[in-house]
Order: sequence, then structure tokens, then C-alpha cells
Amino acid sequence: MKDVLIFGSSGSIGKSSLDFLSKHEEFRIKGLCVNRDIQTLKKQIDKFRPGYVCVVDEAQAEKLRKVLSPKVRFFKGESGLKEFSAIESDISLMAISGISSLVPLLINIGYTKRVALANKEAIVIAGSLIFSKAKLKNTEIIPVDSEISALFQLFMRKYDEFEKVYLTASGGALRNYPESDLLRITAKEVLAHPNWSMGQRITVDSATLVNKAFEVIETHRFFDIDYNNIDVILHRESIVHAMVEYRDKTVFSCLYPPNMSIPISYAFFYPSRVMSVKGLSFEKGLKLSFEPVDYTRYPLLETIIKTAKKEDNGLAVLNACDEVTVDYFLRDKIKFPEIAGVLKYFSKKYPSAIIKNVEDVFYWDRWAREKTKEYLEKLC
Amino acid sequence: MKDVLIFGSSGSIGKSSLDFLSKHEEFRIKGLCVNRDIQTLKKQIDKFRPGYVCVVDEAQAEKLRKVLSPKVRFFKGESGLKEFSAIESDISLMAISGISSLVPLLINIGYTKRVALANKEAIVIAGSLIFSKAKLKNTEIIPVDSEISALFQLFMRKYDEFEKVYLTASGGALRNYPESDLLRITAKEVLAHPNWSMGQRITVDSATLVNKAFEVIETHRFFDIDYNNIDVILHRESIVHAMVEYRDKTVFSCLYPPNMSIPISYAFFYPSRVMSVKGLSFEKGLKLSFEPVDYTRYPLLETIIKTAKKEDNGLAVLNACDEVTVDYFLRDKIKFPEIAGVLKYFSKKYPSAIIKNVEDVFYWDRWAREKTKEYLEKLC
Repeated sequence: MKDVLIFGSSGSIGKSSLDFLSKHEEFRIKGLCVNRDIQTLKKQIDKFRPGYVCVVDEAQAEKLRKVLSPKVRFFKGESGLKEFSAIESDISLMAISGISSLVPLLINIGYTKRVALANKEAIVIAGSLIFSKAKLKNTEIIPVDSEISALFQLFMRKYDEFEKVYLTASGGALRNYPESDLLRITAKEVLAHPNWSMGQRITVDSATLVNKAFEVIETHRFFDIDYNNIDVILHRESIVHAMVEYRDKTVFSCLYPPNMSIPISYAFFYPSRVMSVKGLSFEKGLKLSFEPVDYTRYPLLETIIKTAKKEDNGLAVLNACDEVTVDYFLRDKIKFPEIAGVLKYFSKKYPSAIIKNVEDVFYWDRWAREKTKEYLEKLC
Repeated sequence: MKDVLIFGSSGSIGKSSLDFLSKHEEFRIKGLCVNRDIQTLKKQIDKFRPGYVCVVDEAQAEKLRKVLSPKVRFFKGESGLKEFSAIESDISLMAISGISSLVPLLINIGYTKRVALANKEAIVIAGSLIFSKAKLKNTEIIPVDSEISALFQLFMRKYDEFEKVYLTASGGALRNYPESDLLRITAKEVLAHPNWSMGQRITVDSATLVNKAFEVIETHRFFDIDYNNIDVILHRESIVHAMVEYRDKTVFSCLYPPNMSIPISYAFFYPSRVMSVKGLSFEKGLKLSFEPVDYTRYPLLETIIKTAKKEDNGLAVLNACDEVTVDYFLRDKIKFPEIAGVLKYFSKKYPSAIIKNVEDVFYWDRWAREKTKEYLEKLC
């Protein structure tokens, strides 16, 4: 029996994971944590009966506390989240989105044997802090992101003598629109991702390839692969998630249907695999296509990777800038192509500094949020 | 420095392998053996200066002996082939085609550390004899066949928890002809394989899927996989060579361009990989398609696998029958669809017997050749 903590249980990955875990008796839900969605959390408490519960939003926390059984240990607010992160477990699912995951993640690494990591931003901005702590504490970090999970599985084989990694990108919701249409695209159209059902920001990030740039950085962090050996190719079907090319030019690819069930189950059962029935149907016919990425159309892929190579505060800045800018786009306050414009502007304007610790991350995160808002308010 | 013996050096795989080996100083060609093509052999002797040479055809052997340096140890005829097979080496390439490879292969397993096996028929007909001898002598058998090499590479990863193996078939030269056209197809049209350049029989066997049926049997023999867990799917591009589906429905596939250079280099360098420049170009765009096999159009796939499951002399019979029948087709004496008719007839008519040793193999091989010729002469 393995004790599991879920950080972000009311989100898309959190829910899918609980659904998966409910079918496997090997796991016991020890703790659940949400930001503010106590309606979802209440149902999950009734079903899974965790001993520990955390709600970060103080007002929502108070509402829940009133109806909670006194047997449950309850945590609230930022300080409560830190205490919750220090509960011992066998596996933790880190599915808090954005940079808020960083502090609980760094604490939790000291109290769990394995982190199933569904959050990208923490790795993108503070990958070296996370991996050095994980190494120190001998804690496994297993990616739940589908492309990175595919790579992780591919690298179970001989790691050396490989030459290149290919990450695939669907191209997002706007891939079939002519570039001239992009100015009049609404948020609603961008949110209709052809293959994946995900959160709002990541769906917009898929259309700008910011999400793919983050995965390139994750690949660099997880597997210590030089940026020059990571290529992104357009693959509309989202079935091949990653490929590795060896120096004799043999390519191994990892395929599964475009949903999170395999990355989730793999992160929990690794190095074993659990039986599943829903697979690809080659017998029914399947077409897979690969196309080059149009870097003019998707300028942010290059912008962000160029920034990543600087190994400074740039990714903390651009991540915050992207989150704020996408929010403005989602509220129809700016046009789709302006997202790239804003990020490109900040990629050139931020004062370069070294990230030495978590405080630095949050300093530059706040700095970028403020500056981006100022900039956007002038723009609107 | 590794000593290499080449069995069948004048054939397509033999030539490609020598071309490859000539670029790698780690290997020294210790011996060369051909059936009858002494013109090609002479050039190879001049270039590689092997210490041992064998020509199976006695008349051709005599011609070569006259011009051969007395320093070279020379072998001729069937008995010479047996002696040649007992020369010690680090790696032997077995690229003799057909069932003639069986005796030298079984002898050679006792005198080499690794057989790079390019021959299919020996495994198909006498796989258990070969693998039990290899186990006894602690000799590696590395497949050079492209699909089986792809599987071998895929199975370098975790072997258990897999559920299904997919072998891909191009469909051969006739895949785009309507079935109604097959009666008036000439040998020339069948020999124009869209993706691979190979020998004549194997090109016809690709159009009938007899070749694919043999690979299914190789898969069963090499990896001890139940026939029910091996699927064939049509893949026109011949770029994905094999796929393995695990029980969580993750699929790993192995891709490379449709030529023999990777399987050849892998068999010689395994477990290492040698640098190569000619790879796939995902960046330039690539389309991969998978379709179900039409078992009505390709009836022999089922016929041969059904026979294989009997684990009797059936494959020795059908292999010989196929070789003779294909020869009649190549000489325009029968029509293309009649190949399937003849094999299906013999699959029902042969007297079932157990193959206990090499003599049994040759007995049923001769039996089937005679009976097939009789049958075909009546038919023509």
C-alpha cells in the first residue's frame, strides 16, 4: 500500500489521477490539497477519506473547515501549504499550476520517495534547484507531462550514443488558420484545441508554442541534453509524443493516444506498467504526419529557447509575462499576435540577473508581472 | 580487431556488408564464400585479401583456383563449405540464401562468437535446432533482417509487460493494382518493389506477403512470442519497421530509412552503434500511414502462419514449394495469383511429420520440390 499526496486535486490532472488511483488498491490517498475549489474537494474527501486536507485560499478554507470532520487534519493558507508539503508520503502528485508549485515542491521533495511532476513552470524556471534537492534527498522525479514522459520511457533504453531528441507539437488550435486571420482570432477559438483537453493558459500556450518551448527546457533539465540536440517538429495527430535518434540514425519513438492516462499511470506504477484497454488502433488505419515548424509563424519558440540558453532570470520573467499576457488575451483585451509581441519585448528588456534561490525566482516573477501589467495597460 | 567470415559475399547483403566493413578498421575479413559468382569474388579477394576462400559450385571453383594465390586456403563444393564453416571467427555474416544456409550455419555456430543472420529460411524451417545449438555454444545470433533487427533493438528495453508486436509490410509491388489486374501481371512488374532493392524471390515474396509470414515466424522464434501476439499491418513507406505495444498501451516503434545499412551495421557493432549520416528527415516533412492487411488479397499470410502453428514439417514443405513456384512465375510459366493457389494446395496436402534433425529438413525440402514441380508441370 502506497500513501499518496495530491497537490492540486481539483484541476484536470488532479481529477484524472484520482480517477485512475480509485481503480488501483495499491494506493491510499493520504492527503488532498486545492487552491480554492472546495466544491470539488468536498466530493473527493467523501470518496477518498484522506487524513490530511489543505486549502490555500483562506476564505474558501474557512468555509470548508465548518463542514469538515474533526478527524481530518486541516491546513490553510500559504503557511498551511508548507506544513502540508512536509507530510510524509510514498508518492506525491504535484499538479499545482504555475510557479506556486515551487515552494511546496521543494519542501515535499524532502518528505516523499517520488514526485509525479505535472507542473512545468517549476522545472522551467528553477530546474537546477529542484533536481539538486531531489538528488540530495534521493527522491525520484517522474514527469507526467506527455512528451517528457515519452522521453523518460525512451531513455529507459541505452542513454548514450543518442544524437538528437525530437519533441512533437500539434501546432495548437490555430494551425489551420492563415496567418492573416490571427489578428481577429478570439480566445474562444484558441481554446478549442484539436487533440487535448487542458487548462486555459496551456491551451493558449499550445497555440503560441510557448508550451513547446517549455518542454524543450524540461527536456534539457530532465535529461541534461544540449539545446542544440533538441528539435521540435509539427505533428498534427499528437500520437507520437517524442522520438530519439541515435548516432547510427535509428529512431525510436513513443506513441499513445492524446490523453494523460498513460503518463499518469506510468508515473505512479513506474518501473512497472499497469494494464489498460484503450490504445491506438493501427489495424483500423492510422496516419501520422511530420512537418517542419514555421518559426516566423511561431516566433516565441525561438525567443524562449534563446532566453533559456542565457541561464539567468529570463525564464522567470518570460513565464510571468506570458501568464499575465495570456490572461489579457483571454479577457479579449489584446489580440492573439500581441502575445508574441509582448514576450519578445520583455525578452530584450529585462535586466539580466542570476537566480540563486527561491527568493530570486519570486522577486523576478513579481517584477515581470508588474512590468507586464503596466505595459499592457498602456497598450490596451 | 575482429575476424569476420562472410557466407554469400557476392549477394546483395554480402556486398553491402563488405562495403560497410571496408570503412571500419575494427574488422578484418578472414574468409569469403560464394555459391558461384567468382567474378565478384575475385574483386573482393583483391580488395580484402582474405586468408580463406570457398566456392560451392565445383566448376566455378576450379576456374577460380587456377588464378588464386597459393597463399589463400581454398575450399570447394559442399564438403569444402562444411570445412570453411569450421573456421574460427569473431563474427560471421550468414547471407547464403535459402535452405542451403542451414548446414553451414549449424556448423559455424560452434566456431564463431556471433552470427549476423541475414537468412530467413533457416530460422523459419529449423529455428529450434539453430537456437538450441546457439545456446549450447554460447553464440550470439543477431538478426540482419530489417524488421527483426528493429524488434531486437526495441526489446533491448524491458522485455516483460509487452502485449503485442506489430510488423509492418509495404504491401509489395502490386499493392496499388486492383485485384482484377493480378491475373495479367508480369514478373517484371512484381520485381519493381517500391521501397527495397532485393533479390528476385524475396521481391515476389513481398508481393504475396510470404516474406512477411516468414518474419512473423522469425519473430516467434527469435523472441519466443506467441503467434496471437504478433500482428502485421500495412505501412507503405517502409520507415517504421516494427512496433511493440506494452500492456498500458504505450507503443514504441523503431524507424530508419528503407535500406539495409542500419541492420547490417547494428549486427556488427551491437551493443554499440556506429556513426552514420544518412537518416530520416523529419524536418523536411514525412508522412507515415498504417492500414489493415486485406487477408483476401494476401491469403498466404494466413496460410503460412496457420501451418507454422502446427510445428511440423509444413514450413519446410511450403518454403520449398514457394521457391519452386516463384521460379515458375519468374519464368512466366504461371500467373501471379496461381502462386497462392499452389501453396494453399500443398498446405492441405502434405503428410504431417515431425522435424527432428537436419536430415528431416532436407528430406521434406526435396519431397516438396519434386511434388511442386510435378504439380506445376501439369498446371502449365
